Amino acid sequence: MDQLLIEGVTGKDSPVGVTETKFYTFDGITLESGEKLSPITVAYETYGNLNENKDNAILICHALTGDAHVAGVSKEDGKLGWWDFMIGPGRAFDTDKYFVICSNVIGGCKGSTGPSSINPETGVPYGMSFPVVTIKDMVNVQKRLIDYLGIKRLFCVAGGSMGGMQVLQWTYSYPECVYTAIPIATTIRHTPQQIAFNEVGRRAIMSDPEWLGGDYYGKSFPASGLVVARMIGHITYMSDQSMKEKFGRKRKKSEKYGYDFEAEFEVEKYLKYRGETFVQRFDANSYLYITKAIDYFDLGENRELIKFYDSRDLKFLVISFSHDWLYPPYQSKEIVKILKYAWVDVTYCEISSTYGHDAFLIQNEEQENLVRDFLKNAWQQKGKR
Amino acid sequence: MDQLLIEGVTGKDSPVGVTETKFYTFDGITLESGEKLSPITVAYETYGNLNENKDNAILICHALTGDAHVAGVSKEDGKLGWWDFMIGPGRAFDTDKYFVICSNVIGGCKGSTGPSSINPETGVPYGMSFPVVTIKDMVNVQKRLIDYLGIKRLFCVAGGSMGGMQVLQWTYSYPECVYTAIPIATTIRHTPQQIAFNEVGRRAIMSDPEWLGGDYYGKSFPASGLVVARMIGHITYMSDQSMKEKFGRKRKKSEKYGYDFEAEFEVEKYLKYRGETFVQRFDANSYLYITKAIDYFDLGENRELIKFYDSRDLKFLVISFSHDWLYPPYQSKEIVKILKYAWVDVTYCEISSTYGHDAFLIQNEEQENLVRDFLKNAWQQKGKR
Repeated sequence: MDQLLIEGVTGKDSPVGVTETKFYTFDGITLESGEKLSPITVAYETYGNLNENKDNAILICHALTGDAHVAGVSKEDGKLGWWDFMIGPGRAFDTDKYFVICSNVIGGCKGSTGPSSINPETGVPYGMSFPVVTIKDMVNVQKRLIDYLGIKRLFCVAGGSMGGMQVLQWTYSYPECVYTAIPIATTIRHTPQQIAFNEVGRRAIMSDPEWLGGDYYGKSFPASGLVVARMIGHITYMSDQSMKEKFGRKRKKSEKYGYDFEAEFEVEKYLKYRGETFVQRFDANSYLYITKAIDYFDLGENRELIKFYDSRDLKFLVISFSHDWLYPPYQSKEIVKILKYAWVDVTYCEISSTYGHDAFLIQNEEQENLVRDFLKNAWQQKGKR
Repeated sequence: MDQLLIEGVTGKDSPVGVTETKFYTFDGITLESGEKLSPITVAYETYGNLNENKDNAILICHALTGDAHVAGVSKEDGKLGWWDFMIGPGRAFDTDKYFVICSNVIGGCKGSTGPSSINPETGVPYGMSFPVVTIKDMVNVQKRLIDYLGIKRLFCVAGGSMGGMQVLQWTYSYPECVYTAIPIATTIRHTPQQIAFNEVGRRAIMSDPEWLGGDYYGKSFPASGLVVARMIGHITYMSDQSMKEKFGRKRKKSEKYGYDFEAEFEVEKYLKYRGETFVQRFDANSYLYITKAIDYFDLGENRELIKFYDSRDLKFLVISFSHDWLYPPYQSKEIVKILKYAWVDVTYCEISSTYGHDAFLIQNEEQENLVRDFLKNAWQQKGKR
């Protein structure tokens, strides 16, 4: 079970009800690279109501292949949001209390401006002429959306994986605009192993002759390259253990080996299926741009970060998962260490789960309770000040 | 540093001196699949001298991309053998005492019959008409070579990774022909995660339009697919830790990010270089066949194995490496557990090394001493009987 599976669920009900993606277009921003991206459209969804003080807003940040549709049933295609079980009346992110926002990152392909968007200067999709964006750029664009919604300070920013990087970036870029932060299954900087996995995925896409230097729109689609990239990703989202539990060495043909190169083991069939479904819903160039943004992510040197965060009025809940080997617990502990050294209020929990990195996307009572209680306490403390 | 690096070393001296690959051709065998492969040529090298009793022979089994040239300086291209530091006068596999043999596996592309060999029935290379081979088939062919050399019982069979699988298979297929066995950084059966990594590599190759269904000989070469496959492999051969030590987040351009999709981080450049060098020396179809053989490897159910090995006259030295996450220590411990339950003489050591899976291919005093002492003791005990 992973993000794709959750996103793919249709015909299910949600207490959040039917939701609709909205769009906000503004003049644009100057990116970290120095390039200007203009105009910018942001796809976003909201759940619950913004209170009068406008201090009950929670921003959810999505991972590599996520989108703005985090909860409820999509009006467009009937699909359940990718973190639906976390959001809604009485749920961890309680929409009876909080106003929850989720937006698609720039560089993406789910409604926000990205390489598949039309470049207004040329009238054709950007393709690889789209400027390289960073996690900081994604956050700067989210800040514009938050401004537009009239919110001065977010009660909470939360997210897992790349979403967690955005959470960290929010507390660094706009510390005065954040009250609490929940970075999950993430890291303060991308490691060479993590970069390596992304780079192999990118190379698979760019080696596909159908990629056409990124100008495949309306012509072809580098499906086989993107399938390989997704398969690699998938291996890193699961764990050795969860793969054993789910597939073992089970094969489609019962007794004898096929002695051929068809996908024969269950795990091969599963990865193939996952890859092939993925290419129907995701743009190959977006995969390049978003993985690149992730690889560039490095919030800063530990010593500088400790200085920066010194005694800041922020509350963190850092969550990791025991069998996550893509963003292992030691990387979450490094975040905690920095915050502790800086005398920042931080709670840390490593949740025991064999699921691997995907664990944060899978219904888990412990994660739900941790988030619920953390927010409840923070809300009470906020009222007392 | 990895197998490729060691293999690639030229201009170095070896106490083993200049070596030459020899070839043995025989009528063939019936494969595990039921298909007949005929004739079969085996490329092999030998070092040291076979004694009069013909009881001092050691067979070294190579890993996925290895070959028969395990030690000394190749007469053909001046390259140092891939495990040269382990073999020679006074070395762990002491050629003053032992007669060391190494042969290229069938399905390979280094002189033994494989998919790039000419099919005598058609006069053109086999390509994908080459039958699927297994680790057991590889061992059966090695047995024919050993018979040909007049050896009834091997004093030792040793090897790491896929080489370790062959070692285990030898003790299972021909227990009476083996005295000691040294399986290193290996497993009793391939896990779904290991299968998954291999399958993604295969898919990358088979998605390359230049692959032409395997019939690319003399026409093209699926280089970009094989590069991707090799890059994936490489990530699994190193460790998170060793990548950090070797590359960190170092980039070719010093201060600013390149904000483009060139290989920019040191780790990206390294993987690209490794991939591109690899395609010059390895056949893409062989990569398919050998990874498939590895994936099929499953020596049997633990309970049956315990019964099979019960009190057998075998001595094992099982070695694992602390940071090997491709064939982690727990998988070596499973081999040890089975042998212990079966009352078979087994010594186990987990060597502390940050290198990851490749550690067994890197000079390491502990590995050398373990092997040297194990063989010395076994030789003495052998004499006493």
